[in-house]
Amino acid sequence: MQFETILSPLLLPLYDLQGKTVVVIDVLRATSTICTGLFTGIDHFYAVSSPSEALELQKKGYLAAAERNAVKPDGFELGNSPFEYLNSELKGKKIAFTTTNGTHCIKLSLGADEILIGSFLNLDAIAKYCIDKKKDIIAFCAGWKNKFNLEDTLFAGALASKLIDSFSINCDSSLAAIDLYNAAKSDLKNYILKSSHAKRFEKLGITKDIEFCMQTSIYEIVPRVINGKITL
Amino acid sequence: MQFETILSPLLLPLYDLQGKTVVVIDVLRATSTICTGLFTGIDHFYAVSSPSEALELQKKGYLAAAERNAVKPDGFELGNSPFEYLNSELKGKKIAFTTTNGTHCIKLSLGADEILIGSFLNLDAIAKYCIDKKKDIIAFCAGWKNKFNLEDTLFAGALASKLIDSFSINCDSSLAAIDLYNAAKSDLKNYILKSSHAKRFEKLGITKDIEFCMQTSIYEIVPRVINGKITL
Repeated sequence: MQFETILSPLLLPLYDLQGKTVVVIDVLRATSTICTGLFTGIDHFYAVSSPSEALELQKKGYLAAAERNAVKPDGFELGNSPFEYLNSELKGKKIAFTTTNGTHCIKLSLGADEILIGSFLNLDAIAKYCIDKKKDIIAFCAGWKNKFNLEDTLFAGALASKLIDSFSINCDSSLAAIDLYNAAKSDLKNYILKSSHAKRFEKLGITKDIEFCMQTSIYEIVPRVINGKITL
Repeated sequence: MQFETILSPLLLPLYDLQGKTVVVIDVLRATSTICTGLFTGIDHFYAVSSPSEALELQKKGYLAAAERNAVKPDGFELGNSPFEYLNSELKGKKIAFTTTNGTHCIKLSLGADEILIGSFLNLDAIAKYCIDKKKDIIAFCAGWKNKFNLEDTLFAGALASKLIDSFSINCDSSLAAIDLYNAAKSDLKNYILKSSHAKRFEKLGITKDIEFCMQTSIYEIVPRVINGKITL
């Protein structure tokens, strides 16, 4: 079984997703937020491409959640901070969700055999699922506006490190991700704080979101995309 | 002054080259081979897109050099091994050159203010030139068939490390390249030997090319692209 890493959505056409399991990674913050919401008890997220699509679904009983350039647009019940999804009143709700990077990558992955939602918050659960499933894995980093980013690559490296005894890892992207994770793992949070994305977060006063998203394996859940719905 | 890194040709559209100096990097082997040839005394290389274009120029007094999938096609005087370019009989010659990755990236960079050819063989000379020039720098990694690769990223990291006091380095690609270089620098050659490209080279019996290309700063030259010609 092979393990590969895609470092940016623009590199996706170089990879064949067919028959493979894709782990979509947008650690800051979409995939961390999805994990948090589903752990809280949200019924499902529905990934849409645009805020207007989310507002259409709002008319059909969905809560509308959106983020553009790290902030919540007007007219939406929810944004993209995991703290908003710790609210128990969201139990059983359906969320129409669109973000700058993460939800786009979920839609790009629809040709895969299976799509999982990965974040540091559910790292161990994802790793265990991949080992049990015995299928080729692609770690798909959302990046920031199609550029490479550190935090998603570090997660790919963390996942690769856990799968290294069960999978063949020959692609340079995965080898680099492992070495970056090894350089960062003793103080993941401060490593991330030097990244370009963290600097954007600092300006917006949401550094606490980074601290939250860097917690490792606090949720034993594996969100999957089933008929377009992200659910457990 | 900014320093940025492009990790694959597919990511090029995300960057604005205008007014900037681009350092094209294809360590294994095109940019190492160009540096070696120009140090030997070749008059210039002319980067072309296809073997047929190189053969056209052959009729006009050029030597034709090509590499596809790491081997030399039939009908060409020269391939892409730096050892072929240590030959003093090449002094004053003109070379029409096409390779799988590197020459393509030179052509993609033509919108930049200036294009330099970087390799470990001329690392210090490139760094000094960039510091003296005082312009924004983009380190452009050729990769392998548009995929990220380790060796070009390591060179970007080595160059960034030398420029860190003179340039502002905020892009995640450059930060990752620096950390990978720090992980690798104590034994660069063996680090590269674990990469996917090195494994391809091993199959072809050209591991000695890797050892050659990993020598650091043996040439005090800065090849530049001037009116389409790569020259000193």
